[in-house]
Amino acid sequence: MKQADAVVIGGSAAGLPAAIGCRRRYPQKSVILIRQEEQVLVPCGLPYIFGTLGSPEKDVVPDAILTNNNVELVKGEVVEIDREKKAVSMSSGDTIGYDKLVLTTGSLPVVLPIPGADKGNVFTANKDLIYLKNMLDTINGARDVVIIGGGFIGVEFADECKKNHDCNVTIVEVLPHCLQLALDEEFCVEAEKVLTERGIKLLLNSKVEAILGDKQVSGVRLSGGQELKADVVIMGVGARPNVELAKKAELEIGPTKAIAVDRYMRTITDVNIFACGDCAEKYSFFSGKLSRTMLASIAGAEARIVGANLFNTRYRNHGEIGVFSTIIGEQAFGCAGLTEAAARQEGFDVVVGESTAPDRHPGGMPGAANTKVKLVFSRDNGLLLGGGVSGGKGTGEIVNIISACIQHWMTAYEVSLFQMGTHPALTASPIVYQMVNAAELAVKAM
Amino acid sequence: MKQADAVVIGGSAAGLPAAIGCRRRYPQKSVILIRQEEQVLVPCGLPYIFGTLGSPEKDVVPDAILTNNNVELVKGEVVEIDREKKAVSMSSGDTIGYDKLVLTTGSLPVVLPIPGADKGNVFTANKDLIYLKNMLDTINGARDVVIIGGGFIGVEFADECKKNHDCNVTIVEVLPHCLQLALDEEFCVEAEKVLTERGIKLLLNSKVEAILGDKQVSGVRLSGGQELKADVVIMGVGARPNVELAKKAELEIGPTKAIAVDRYMRTITDVNIFACGDCAEKYSFFSGKLSRTMLASIAGAEARIVGANLFNTRYRNHGEIGVFSTIIGEQAFGCAGLTEAAARQEGFDVVVGESTAPDRHPGGMPGAANTKVKLVFSRDNGLLLGGGVSGGKGTGEIVNIISACIQHWMTAYEVSLFQMGTHPALTASPIVYQMVNAAELAVKAM
Repeated sequence: MKQADAVVIGGSAAGLPAAIGCRRRYPQKSVILIRQEEQVLVPCGLPYIFGTLGSPEKDVVPDAILTNNNVELVKGEVVEIDREKKAVSMSSGDTIGYDKLVLTTGSLPVVLPIPGADKGNVFTANKDLIYLKNMLDTINGARDVVIIGGGFIGVEFADECKKNHDCNVTIVEVLPHCLQLALDEEFCVEAEKVLTERGIKLLLNSKVEAILGDKQVSGVRLSGGQELKADVVIMGVGARPNVELAKKAELEIGPTKAIAVDRYMRTITDVNIFACGDCAEKYSFFSGKLSRTMLASIAGAEARIVGANLFNTRYRNHGEIGVFSTIIGEQAFGCAGLTEAAARQEGFDVVVGESTAPDRHPGGMPGAANTKVKLVFSRDNGLLLGGGVSGGKGTGEIVNIISACIQHWMTAYEVSLFQMGTHPALTASPIVYQMVNAAELAVKAM
Repeated sequence: MKQADAVVIGGSAAGLPAAIGCRRRYPQKSVILIRQEEQVLVPCGLPYIFGTLGSPEKDVVPDAILTNNNVELVKGEVVEIDREKKAVSMSSGDTIGYDKLVLTTGSLPVVLPIPGADKGNVFTANKDLIYLKNMLDTINGARDVVIIGGGFIGVEFADECKKNHDCNVTIVEVLPHCLQLALDEEFCVEAEKVLTERGIKLLLNSKVEAILGDKQVSGVRLSGGQELKADVVIMGVGARPNVELAKKAELEIGPTKAIAVDRYMRTITDVNIFACGDCAEKYSFFSGKLSRTMLASIAGAEARIVGANLFNTRYRNHGEIGVFSTIIGEQAFGCAGLTEAAARQEGFDVVVGESTAPDRHPGGMPGAANTKVKLVFSRDNGLLLGGGVSGGKGTGEIVNIISACIQHWMTAYEVSLFQMGTHPALTASPIVYQMVNAAELAVKAM
C-alpha cells in the first residue's frame, strides 16, 4: 500500500494550491495528489475554448507545477475513503494511506430538470477534454445556439461563440438582467448593451420550459409558449458541489449541500480530513452566513489555508469576499464584496461613491478606456463593503485593489487617501484616479 | 479685493485635488485656484509628447474639472503673500484675500551646474507648453540625442524619442544602473536590456562634465574625456522644490529645501497656510525620516489631506510609500514601498518571495505577458515592506494592490491568503497568482 503524509483528491483550482501549499509549509512531508483526469482544464478558461483559444488542448493546466513542487501525481479514481484505516481505495484496486486527507472534488454543472435536457447537443460547462472537443465540433457546425442562463458562464460562452462563428446566439435569462447575481443593475445594463451590440440576442425574464427535438435538440420552448430554433443548447445555470465520495464516507454535508467544514477548513466530522473549493461549505466574509459562491479564486484562497493548516492549525478562514471579473468584447466588468443591492438587502445604511475616468492619462493615450469605479460603504462606520468596476483591462486588478482594501477593513476615509502609483500608459491620472475620487465623494455624502 | 475662504496657488497634481477636495469636504466654502499657466500639462505625460502623443497640446489637463467642481480659476502670477492681511498680491496688481491658503508651487527641473548647460538645445522636463513645443521641434530635427540621467524621466524620454524619430539616443547615467534609485538591481538590468534592444545606447557609471558647442550644443564631454556628438541634450537629473514665494513670505524651509509642514500638512510657520506636493516636505511611511521622493501621486494624496484639513483637522499624513510604474517598449516595471536594497539598508532582516507567471490564463491567451512579482517582508514580524513588478500592463495596478497591502500593514501570512479575483483575459490564474505565491514562498523562508 502506497502511503503519504498528505493525500489530496482532485487536481484543479483547489487541489493544486493545497498540495503545493502543504509542500511549502511542511517541506519534510510527502504529498500525493490523486486525480481522475488525464489532463486538467483551466476551469475559468472553458468559454474561451470556443473562440479565443480555439481548442480544449490550449486550456490545459501544465503538470510541471506538480513536479516542480515535488508533489507525486497519481491518476485514477478514488472510490472509497476508509476513515478508520486512514486510506483511500482506487477503482484500480490500489489503496493509498494518508495521515491527512484533503477533498477537492469540486462541483458539477447543474442540468435543468426540464423535458429534453438529455437530448443530443445539449451541453453544460463540463470540465472534460473529450466532452469539450465534441462540444466544440458541434458548435463549429451550428447555426442557432441557445444559452440558458445569463450569468458569467452564459455571457462568456455567448461572447466567445460569436467570435469565430457565423451563428445566431441567444441568451435566455430567467431574471430581469444578465449578471444580476454579481453586479449592480447599472453594470448589468451596460453589459447587456455590449452583448446586444455584438449581435447576441437577449431574452430576459424568460424561462426555458422544455428542450425540443428528437434525439438531437432542434429548439427550446419558453414558458410563454414561444419556441426558439436551436441546434446547440448550452446550460450555464450554476454548479452543485460534488460530494458523492464525502457522503459515502459519512462526512457531514451542510445546508448548502457542500461538505461542512470549520473555520480551519477541517471537515466537522473528521479532524484528519479537510475540504476546500467548490465541494466545501463557504461563509460570507461580511455576514458569516453560508454562501454558495463558487470561484476558482476562492478555492485557491481556501486551499492555501488548508495547505498551511494540515499539520498545525495556523489560519482561520475569514469567509469569502467574492471577487469577479470578466470581459465582453473590449469592455471589462468586475466586482468585489457586496454590491449596492446586496448591501441594502443586508440592511446596511449605504453610501455610494462613483467616479469615471480614462484608464490612461492624458485621455488621448493609446488604448485608453473610460473606466468607472463604484464603491459601496457603510454610513455608520465608513467601512468599505464592496465595489463594481467597468472599463478597460485594468479592471481585473482594480477589483483586486478593492478586495485588498475590503480584506483589511478600510474605511472611506482611508480609501480616499489611498497612495496609488500612476503612469500615463498604465493607469488613470492621479487627479482623477477613480477609487480615491469615489471614496472622497462617498465621504462627502456621509 | 477678491476674497475666498480657500485660495490655492498652483493648478497641477497637488493644486487640483486640494481645491476639489476642499469643495467636497466644505461645500459651503468658496475656493479660488490661481495659476500662472494658460494651460496645465499632465506632468507625467511630458515624455510622451515626444513619441506616443506627438504634441504638447495632447498632454493638457482639461479645465472642465475646475468648473465641474465649482472652483473659480484665476490666471496670473502671485508675487507676494501678506500673512498679516491674509492676502496674496498678483503681478497684475490685484490682491486676493484668503482665510486658508494652500501652496502647491511644485518643483523645477534641476539644471546640472556644468559648463555649457545654458547652450541652445539643452532641455529639461520643463512643464511649459511653449518650451515643450520648441523642444519637440528641435528633437524632430535631431540626429543625436544625449539624455543625462537614467531615472524614470530619462528612460521614458529615451524610449519616446526613439519611437517617432530616426535618431541616435544615448543615456548617460552616473550610477551603475538606470532606475537604480527606485528598483532593485535585477529589475534595472531587465529594463536596461529592453532599452538596449530598442536601440538606446547606455553609458553607465558615466558623468557628463561639460556640454560642448558654440551657441547651440554640439556634444557632451564625459569625465573620462570621451566626447559624444549631440544636437540635443535632455537633462533628467531630478527636480527641486519651488519655494521662492514661501521663502519671501518667511515660511520655514526644511532640510530637504522644501516647505516645512506638520503631519496635518500645515506649514509649521503659519497655521493658515498649508503646502502639499513637490514644494512640501515629505516623510517616509516606513522610517518617518525626511524624504525627497516627488511623484504626482504623492502630491495628490497629500492634497486630499489638505483639502480635508483646511477648516477642520481630520487626517494625519502617514508619510509617503512611494509607488512607481513605467513602461519601456512593451514591458512595464513598477514598485511600491521599499526595495530589497533599501530595506536592507534600513537594517531590516529581509525575507523575499518571488513569483513569475503569465498575466493571463491559460498562458496561451492573447496578450499574455510573463509578469514577475517580488515582495519584501520583515522577518521579525512578517510585515510587507515593499514589492517590485515587471511584466505586462497590469503592472500599474498590481503595484497599487501592493501599496494597499503596505498601507494597512499586512503581513506575509495575510498576503498569502489574499482573496483576489481572476479571469482568463484579465489576470494571472488563481493557482499561480504572483502576489499570493510570492507571499507563500516568503512565509516558507521565514
